[in-house]
Amino acid sequence: MTSPPTEPGELPFETLVGQTIGEEAVHDLAPLLPVLAADLADIDRRLTTMLRSTYPQLTNAATYACNTGGKRVRPLLMVAVHRGLGATTTTAIHSLAAAFQLIHTATLVHDDVIDHAEMRRGRPSMPRAFGLPAAIVSGDYLFVRAFELAADYPKEIILRCGEACADLVEGEVLQETGRFDLTRGQEHYYRVIERKTAALIAASLASVAVIAGAEPSVVDACGAYGRSLGIAFQIKDDLLDLYGDPDLLGKPLYADLREGNPTLVSLEAYNHLEPTKRAEFERLFAQRRKQPGDLLRLKALTDETGAPQRVADEAQRWAERAVHSLEPLADSPYRQLLVSAARGAAARRF
Amino acid sequence: MTSPPTEPGELPFETLVGQTIGEEAVHDLAPLLPVLAADLADIDRRLTTMLRSTYPQLTNAATYACNTGGKRVRPLLMVAVHRGLGATTTTAIHSLAAAFQLIHTATLVHDDVIDHAEMRRGRPSMPRAFGLPAAIVSGDYLFVRAFELAADYPKEIILRCGEACADLVEGEVLQETGRFDLTRGQEHYYRVIERKTAALIAASLASVAVIAGAEPSVVDACGAYGRSLGIAFQIKDDLLDLYGDPDLLGKPLYADLREGNPTLVSLEAYNHLEPTKRAEFERLFAQRRKQPGDLLRLKALTDETGAPQRVADEAQRWAERAVHSLEPLADSPYRQLLVSAARGAAARRF
Repeated sequence: MTSPPTEPGELPFETLVGQTIGEEAVHDLAPLLPVLAADLADIDRRLTTMLRSTYPQLTNAATYACNTGGKRVRPLLMVAVHRGLGATTTTAIHSLAAAFQLIHTATLVHDDVIDHAEMRRGRPSMPRAFGLPAAIVSGDYLFVRAFELAADYPKEIILRCGEACADLVEGEVLQETGRFDLTRGQEHYYRVIERKTAALIAASLASVAVIAGAEPSVVDACGAYGRSLGIAFQIKDDLLDLYGDPDLLGKPLYADLREGNPTLVSLEAYNHLEPTKRAEFERLFAQRRKQPGDLLRLKALTDETGAPQRVADEAQRWAERAVHSLEPLADSPYRQLLVSAARGAAARRF
Repeated sequence: MTSPPTEPGELPFETLVGQTIGEEAVHDLAPLLPVLAADLADIDRRLTTMLRSTYPQLTNAATYACNTGGKRVRPLLMVAVHRGLGATTTTAIHSLAAAFQLIHTATLVHDDVIDHAEMRRGRPSMPRAFGLPAAIVSGDYLFVRAFELAADYPKEIILRCGEACADLVEGEVLQETGRFDLTRGQEHYYRVIERKTAALIAASLASVAVIAGAEPSVVDACGAYGRSLGIAFQIKDDLLDLYGDPDLLGKPLYADLREGNPTLVSLEAYNHLEPTKRAEFERLFAQRRKQPGDLLRLKALTDETGAPQRVADEAQRWAERAVHSLEPLADSPYRQLLVSAARGAAARRF
């Protein structure tokens, strides 16, 4: 089986895909893996070539940002959608997949500056490893290279890409306005994650469908699938920040509590606590500098309400909405992979 | 005469243009002003429309960044080149001019974060006015909207725009690597300003020439003009940081000394001091936190060497190189305006 070249310490392709679609699905879909591995290796090559600068500092920083052991969920979904729509080669979307991956990475880098993140996927975050100026500038560089890659595509695709980026930025702004404030409720939370996470995945998959020459209804279906999967993914991500294994996640827990980001699980707990504890929860949540005891108390109060299970169920409901969106697509092993990826987004442990 | 709508406190168009090309040239070229004013007003409108977000916070921040009383040198040069090449309407380049203006503004916003700038053009800088997260995110937003505007153009233009952005980022990285270090010399300085300032102006004017359907030699001439003008502009900018009027500049002096950016005038002074004073200059320059007395001493040592006059002469030589680059263009009042703009870049007081 041809696997893409792996970096020292990098996981085998099957393991990476297993993290996205679940190990059972990897077993069932084993015949697809060599094809997908070759697709993703080509996307990686385009990405790496694009990052080369005359300044090794910049190449190194940008490469570091892109090589933090990510699961490459986004390019995997893009090639699966393309092949699921009948493409026998995905070359036509490789530059676009690299562009979306660069945009995603750029926003992670700038988020890590804004959120004072120390770690990402088991390594020092960009601002920690390279300093704040280099992190800001490298994020800009990733954005710029992404748009150069997108220049290969028709205006419609570039605009879908641009609008998703604007959504991302708007999501970040919206998140900033709601920090340390639980009173804005779930509507605010969903607005943030739709923009910060779901919009880019939706735009990437709708763009692939456009490039595949799909009917408008199928383009919309792919976008809707990406949006629901993105929401499921983010709800689960926020749960893992409280209940995940920090070694598997590669970063410390409780970042959202520390940074005052209201997540679905905090909001659900807050809504179900009796008044005295609710006031305590609100007071602790609003503190700018929380002690470890404060974080554990917030978690204990959350546990009391049964919020984690209800929120996990909600992530699964979004995954099923994603699956349902795929109905207009013809049945195929790639469609099956997309089904598993949606369920995997809600079920994953990291 | 039709002037563009002016904001409260905004300067009349003639005054703005006078700041770029000199008051004498404004007088000579008065018949062009209504045409140019209408061009720039339309570019401003596209820019403002593009910044509208569903989130007033973002619209406000982005608009604040774009409305800091700039002289709009870049769009003025772009329409002058377009008309100088025979265009009777410049509508075809208005989106591109708005895009380049947004990119320029985005980098100023991120620079102000990196350089801890407090003021820009008489108002609090973006990070000072809106906070660091909003400044980072607004810069990203300006980049994204710029690329959406650029999507109107053929791939060649988008790539020129993208490459200039990559140059900008590389220039920032290069500048970071040379902070507080005078030993890298003029070659390093020129590399930085070619990328940070000259590349974007060169790309914008070469792109206009491409859109005007100019011969490759004329495209190159416009690029070379923009590059030399950009270098003249930046050399003068760095001189003004030591010798300008802070009220006219709208920001405090000595930012480059404080941030440890070696400029041509510091390098020239450093090279001409006798060994004892040279060592003192180097030691003071390398200090991370300079006292007001340190800044004044660095300036006094600089004055002793006669560096300011030699550097002012050098800016003028670059302006003349820019003028010389215009030779392939047919004579016209717009060409005359470009000549005056190049000389104005080296002669301006702010």
